[in-house]
Amino acid sequence: MLLRLLKILSTSCFSLMFFLSNIAHASVLSAQEQAVMKTLQQEMLASDLSYQLVESITTEVGNRRLGTEGDKKAIKWAVAKMKALGFDKVWTEEVESPQWLRGDIEAKIISPYQHDLAVIGLGGTVGTPKQGIQAPIVHFNSLDDLKAAKKGSLKGKIAFISYRMKPAIDGSGYGVAVAARSQGAIVAAEKGASAFIMRSVGTDNNRSAHTGMMRYKEHVKKIPAAALANPDADLLVNILKRGEPVNFYLKINAQRNPSIMLKSASVIGEITGSEYPDEIVALGAHLDSWDVGTGAIDDGMGIGIVLAVGAKMAQLPKAPKRTIRVILYAGEEVGFYGTKKYMQLHKNEIHKHIIGAEWDFGLGRIYEMKTFVGASALNAIREFAQIIAPLGVALSPDNNAVAQSDMSLLTKAGMPSINFAADGLRYFDYHHTENDTLDKINPEDLKQNTTVYALFAYFAAQSGIDFRQ
Amino acid sequence: MLLRLLKILSTSCFSLMFFLSNIAHASVLSAQEQAVMKTLQQEMLASDLSYQLVESITTEVGNRRLGTEGDKKAIKWAVAKMKALGFDKVWTEEVESPQWLRGDIEAKIISPYQHDLAVIGLGGTVGTPKQGIQAPIVHFNSLDDLKAAKKGSLKGKIAFISYRMKPAIDGSGYGVAVAARSQGAIVAAEKGASAFIMRSVGTDNNRSAHTGMMRYKEHVKKIPAAALANPDADLLVNILKRGEPVNFYLKINAQRNPSIMLKSASVIGEITGSEYPDEIVALGAHLDSWDVGTGAIDDGMGIGIVLAVGAKMAQLPKAPKRTIRVILYAGEEVGFYGTKKYMQLHKNEIHKHIIGAEWDFGLGRIYEMKTFVGASALNAIREFAQIIAPLGVALSPDNNAVAQSDMSLLTKAGMPSINFAADGLRYFDYHHTENDTLDKINPEDLKQNTTVYALFAYFAAQSGIDFRQ
Repeated sequence: MLLRLLKILSTSCFSLMFFLSNIAHASVLSAQEQAVMKTLQQEMLASDLSYQLVESITTEVGNRRLGTEGDKKAIKWAVAKMKALGFDKVWTEEVESPQWLRGDIEAKIISPYQHDLAVIGLGGTVGTPKQGIQAPIVHFNSLDDLKAAKKGSLKGKIAFISYRMKPAIDGSGYGVAVAARSQGAIVAAEKGASAFIMRSVGTDNNRSAHTGMMRYKEHVKKIPAAALANPDADLLVNILKRGEPVNFYLKINAQRNPSIMLKSASVIGEITGSEYPDEIVALGAHLDSWDVGTGAIDDGMGIGIVLAVGAKMAQLPKAPKRTIRVILYAGEEVGFYGTKKYMQLHKNEIHKHIIGAEWDFGLGRIYEMKTFVGASALNAIREFAQIIAPLGVALSPDNNAVAQSDMSLLTKAGMPSINFAADGLRYFDYHHTENDTLDKINPEDLKQNTTVYALFAYFAAQSGIDFRQ
Repeated sequence: MLLRLLKILSTSCFSLMFFLSNIAHASVLSAQEQAVMKTLQQEMLASDLSYQLVESITTEVGNRRLGTEGDKKAIKWAVAKMKALGFDKVWTEEVESPQWLRGDIEAKIISPYQHDLAVIGLGGTVGTPKQGIQAPIVHFNSLDDLKAAKKGSLKGKIAFISYRMKPAIDGSGYGVAVAARSQGAIVAAEKGASAFIMRSVGTDNNRSAHTGMMRYKEHVKKIPAAALANPDADLLVNILKRGEPVNFYLKINAQRNPSIMLKSASVIGEITGSEYPDEIVALGAHLDSWDVGTGAIDDGMGIGIVLAVGAKMAQLPKAPKRTIRVILYAGEEVGFYGTKKYMQLHKNEIHKHIIGAEWDFGLGRIYEMKTFVGASALNAIREFAQIIAPLGVALSPDNNAVAQSDMSLLTKAGMPSINFAADGLRYFDYHHTENDTLDKINPEDLKQNTTVYALFAYFAAQSGIDFRQ
């Protein structure tokens, strides 16, 4: 009860402050700029450019894991698109990553009942011996249960974690579920297991298994690691429930080749600011995808949004005062290569990054804006929040946001950041699967999302606010 | 307006007739029988036996196309289950079918953009030459468009139909869509095409292509035929829209071996009637499935329902007056083998089949009962309809139903029939795909459906109504 009272009081205080701040300050935008914002909103809501861009990269390029043919095509595609869309500076920043070959995979239940399973290797896994591994399954409900197993107890066994990821609008089930993917092979190996399998980190019941990065640890044996499609994991659980030993067969001919370095590149483009060219409003997405599906939602949507916003800024009669920099990061999926390189190359100019936002999560509409800005800048943020409120976007009362994905490194380096939270309830149905294809995107939702990013970009670039203050 | 008035009038008349029939006739069930029905309803709604049976066949047998190892296991499974569940007569009726081997399949877009596609061979297709076929695509929106193509115009080409099946609660989109699957390869070959591909007959956007039978015609060249997963078909359409020639690669190593005969069998069990053992209430489902997924919705659900109903009838203190016959038909998917054989073997005892119902469609709850009975029997039907109305089942005003699937042959031979229409809006998301697995079934909906069938079986077997009159 006390908590509720405090909550009501704090909300009231917040409303009061909000009201006072609105009468205390004049608008940060001129009447003319406000008119531009209105037109911008109308035009962006009517434009399907971001959808056309996702359609283009998924259709003409397809999937694009770092260093693959698709990745090379994606880099060319992005450079050409930026130029065609009117970005006045376009460059690439090269990265290198050791080669990993996925190879083929096969998984079967051998006994007591025979089933061929839908399965995918986790990113970076070693292969099995050529003839595969045949071993009994030991079943754990979670990573914690696996951690609690006795050392050596899994010798000659395959460890299986059946944890079910929970769907949530903010994707909050991911963090819990993904720990098993990251650490499962290490923990299983420490207990003596010869392989590690898991229920996919995904909220669907499709027979498309979810890949994603896994880790190894120095001095711990590298064992093969794979994810079963969720219906197949459930089948395995049902067979295990019968209490008989379950014999499993797993064959993966993946290869880690640390001495072979693959090349890739982030692609970066700018609409140079008309008054403060050295001040950057950064918009990010990642150019790479996993090597399954066509990378439509991860992160084709992000690419479509930030390119369409850049294109619109380039088309304005006069470019916004600050520079709009669109960063399409290389190799996010396989280890944040593009963003790490960016931080190296630009370490002396972090202060020039006035504010930034990335898109790398969500499938539906943006419903909340989360901020990380200076206390004084909150007034301007509230003004902006009122502009996007009719689009269904609420302002989060917290002010401790981290930009999504790659751009989180810029936030950590002090860049004021916005995290636009989009509806991700069904995002993890498709994430990192063959099912990540164009048809999963709702063009109308994408228009709303693109409009929010466009309004943000213009507002941040035109208003002259110091978001650090 | 006139139509609406007529509709209101006819509904009112129907209600009046219904009312009159209820006061004119005493109940067809005794008070004791009515009490049995009440208990039956309560117990069936609380029982998960039908779900346990689907779980059992999908887990312990898996898929079971006619003549495969899975099919052999399914026959043993069904015989053992019927015996264990208390059926007092259990027998098999053998069938034979020519061998078809699915083999592997590969489909790619070669140019202008490279994509590996999710694809499945249609049931019965011939293979391609060993090296596959590489040819340009000619695109048609529908089978009618393909029919309108000029003879010889598709020489050296692959014909592609991109028709999108429409979802509907009663599955009514299937009939329109499936014509392309049945006849596409014939029509394409008549126009000179070297292969035929199509968008799957399915309402999903999963990358699980839908198989199902296709046909060839005497004196028309047999060309290979395959279905693309819907996202892949849409990708192909988007590439074709760009107007450049699209080169396609298709390799299928399927085999038709008409001289090798595969054996299978329908499995039939009875709870012999306690008063009229020669009068049969027939409940049907099909035992076979396609060779993908685990055959949960097609037709594991039907198997679970009719076996659970038989088991319940066997457990009653006294068996119902008439015989309950549960028929698990062989080879429905590949050509109605079980039902054709049944009609041959039982051609002189069709009159003994008092009434029957099959389950071979739907994923949600039964919402309507459709009938095909004599005019006098409609009174009893209305009484039964009142019993199942609280379960959400309406009585169709028509009286021209055909029993589902296999059992339609018995309807056509004059057997009074019931067709319980269940919600099938999402049925064709999974039908004939790898995605037809246990997790697609809602256990609570299945309880309702099983209860309706149990009430029907008891009512029909106990009431003594002549449904032909």
